[in-house]
Amino acid sequence: MDGSSPRELPARDRGHSPRDQPGLRRANLALVLRALREHGPHSRAGLSRLTGLNKATTSSLVAELEQRRLVRLGDAVPNQFGRPGHLVELRPAAVCGIGLEVNVDYLAVAVVDLPGNLVEHRRIAADVVALGQDRALDRLAELAEHGLAHVRGLAGWVSGITAAVPALVDSDNGVVRFAPNLGWRELPVVEGLARRLGLPADQLGVHNDANLSALAEYAHGVAAGSGDLLYLTGEVGVGGGVIAGGQLLRGATGFTGEVGHMPLDPTGTPCGCGRRGCWETQVGLAALLRAVGGPDDEVTDPSLDLEGRLAVVKGRAEAGDPRTLAALRQIGSALGVGASILVNVLNPTAVVLGGYFATLGEWLVEPALAELSGRVLAPERGGCALVLSDLGFTAAVRGGGYAALERVFDDPTLVPPGDSPGAGPGEGAR
Amino acid sequence: MDGSSPRELPARDRGHSPRDQPGLRRANLALVLRALREHGPHSRAGLSRLTGLNKATTSSLVAELEQRRLVRLGDAVPNQFGRPGHLVELRPAAVCGIGLEVNVDYLAVAVVDLPGNLVEHRRIAADVVALGQDRALDRLAELAEHGLAHVRGLAGWVSGITAAVPALVDSDNGVVRFAPNLGWRELPVVEGLARRLGLPADQLGVHNDANLSALAEYAHGVAAGSGDLLYLTGEVGVGGGVIAGGQLLRGATGFTGEVGHMPLDPTGTPCGCGRRGCWETQVGLAALLRAVGGPDDEVTDPSLDLEGRLAVVKGRAEAGDPRTLAALRQIGSALGVGASILVNVLNPTAVVLGGYFATLGEWLVEPALAELSGRVLAPERGGCALVLSDLGFTAAVRGGGYAALERVFDDPTLVPPGDSPGAGPGEGAR
Repeated sequence: MDGSSPRELPARDRGHSPRDQPGLRRANLALVLRALREHGPHSRAGLSRLTGLNKATTSSLVAELEQRRLVRLGDAVPNQFGRPGHLVELRPAAVCGIGLEVNVDYLAVAVVDLPGNLVEHRRIAADVVALGQDRALDRLAELAEHGLAHVRGLAGWVSGITAAVPALVDSDNGVVRFAPNLGWRELPVVEGLARRLGLPADQLGVHNDANLSALAEYAHGVAAGSGDLLYLTGEVGVGGGVIAGGQLLRGATGFTGEVGHMPLDPTGTPCGCGRRGCWETQVGLAALLRAVGGPDDEVTDPSLDLEGRLAVVKGRAEAGDPRTLAALRQIGSALGVGASILVNVLNPTAVVLGGYFATLGEWLVEPALAELSGRVLAPERGGCALVLSDLGFTAAVRGGGYAALERVFDDPTLVPPGDSPGAGPGEGAR
Repeated sequence: MDGSSPRELPARDRGHSPRDQPGLRRANLALVLRALREHGPHSRAGLSRLTGLNKATTSSLVAELEQRRLVRLGDAVPNQFGRPGHLVELRPAAVCGIGLEVNVDYLAVAVVDLPGNLVEHRRIAADVVALGQDRALDRLAELAEHGLAHVRGLAGWVSGITAAVPALVDSDNGVVRFAPNLGWRELPVVEGLARRLGLPADQLGVHNDANLSALAEYAHGVAAGSGDLLYLTGEVGVGGGVIAGGQLLRGATGFTGEVGHMPLDPTGTPCGCGRRGCWETQVGLAALLRAVGGPDDEVTDPSLDLEGRLAVVKGRAEAGDPRTLAALRQIGSALGVGASILVNVLNPTAVVLGGYFATLGEWLVEPALAELSGRVLAPERGGCALVLSDLGFTAAVRGGGYAALERVFDDPTLVPPGDSPGAGPGEGAR
């Protein structure tokens, strides 16, 4: 592998201009690959139109991408002279990124391929706080091994492994600074995984889960291709991930999208952070369950499975239970009030609701939209839609895989030609 | 002029990769020009190191930039072999951008040159609301004529004209959608100025004043070169401009940085927008004056000059007046509370305080920093500093000039070689 590190998420300053001929070739290979991701399968003539490259150059680039197993020829289509040609498409299952996820009560791995398919996904229940940092990393490494073995089984090439953690993450150094709900502090996740997997650290990365979810939505979700989108996690904590101008908003030191503690009411409900009226106290999962159920209600019983409890809430809403409907209306309004702050600052095309916001979205969207429409200053909400994620609980772990794949979209020449197999991480390294 | 429009502020998706040889040459000319802006005068060998281009290419690029009057050779310095060489520097006063500004009680023009110098600045008092839209545009066009004449006097080339307005601006179409404090609605500013000046509309632009101020701070202010910064206007309204990853955060439709109406207190002071507790009601100019002075106090007398009234407030603070100091402490805290929301979302290197926040910054920064430090989740405020703008009331109008210059930094070949004078807008067009 070359010196470019997979730890770096695609940030806006990544788009270095090519400065010489080999750089120009690399940039043009990337241009064709991104055009296929954005616009789907196209003939070589169509790619030439999309990219502005001439036909001879386009054909030569497609041939190189084919040799590197990044694209393949698909269905035959007649060209403008009626002679048959073939559509060029991203090759499934050949080049893959691996995502990992740590959450309070589960660990997960996902393998995604270049066209964005979820090739493999495994999720195991785990009490991560009780496990402790070391054993949690042991389990996570086992899941990574499972992903690597899966790609080996497909004779594929792995572009890297990126872990999603609900935490303040110092991605440049591969360290989780603070994950309040996991009890992790100053944990060198990249180093720990690299040691356990016997891989060089530069093939691994770690990022905030909301940021990676935003990337997954951009790459493959309901708002795919929206260059400006905001993803909101609906969990115990409320986090945000921002795509701006087609790139993850990274900020000065990688700590963007911390939206849970917006102080919206100085006399509001006390928050775990020690203050009152944070947005999380109004729209976090605990606020929902408190508003929906009394103290002895099954939905507030932490020993029961969360998805089961959400199903109960949903059932009550469908049955028209007044308390449930009132609670959802109130939470939807508060969601809209807080989101209006973010839409006024960021002017996204879409706010994508994840986690429980998506599960119960049917009842949340209308009151949220009413607040957004009233509070966003730009005409017609600045064109902003409120949409429900359909990636469910796989958004963050998929995002890890997409983050690992971004390097290939930036520089397709990282992938060795098909006649030198086993040069990828997880293969070449063992 | 070519088809690229000066209306477009530098947005992140502007950085098209070059796809062919002429494109590569253009991109490399831009690379050298930007390196000189970012790092100051350098020898050709130094530029070669900064850009990664080889020395022969660098010399050839410098020669072309010199011919286009974008750079000049400055002081002689000994090279590594002890032979004298010359520093290459951006040429002052040759290629200029013109900024215009409309505000409640004044109109202004600024001419800025490639190195960022304010070459000319004129500000005239005007009751813009009383003037009405048409006569305000008449006056603005006269100021633009003054700027054009000034550049002609320097035998310079104008890259474009961009107006700053405290408004929701549809920049793509050159229309001010709504400027509450000016009473403007749906005003086609670009078309109006183009007609009055006899210039093609694609040489003119209009943008929100806070966005342009952020650009000015990035290009030439106290936080110059901070790729991630947030500018806050301290006026009757409070606006924000965001630079992220070295580019203006543009959003989906250009309506970013609307921070004045963040709803921070549901039982707070009534706001002009019809709601309560907006950030503006806590930290806007009216809040300051209300907190500092009683109803019969000279500082709340709207018939007196604003800068004079701020000088009175400053004098009282310097004299240790308890009411004034308490008011400033309270406003500083509220400034920090609101700014913490934005810092948590955007993770900037610096928050730059403009307008009256800068004038009275001495008393605002400490309480604001205390709130920021307590509320920003990233370690050490994510590295964020709170700094006072030193551009005073020229930030927005300078920003207009810088916005107009950005096209040249993107594509230096827009500027004709020195032997074909008069090809620039405002010259070639008459």
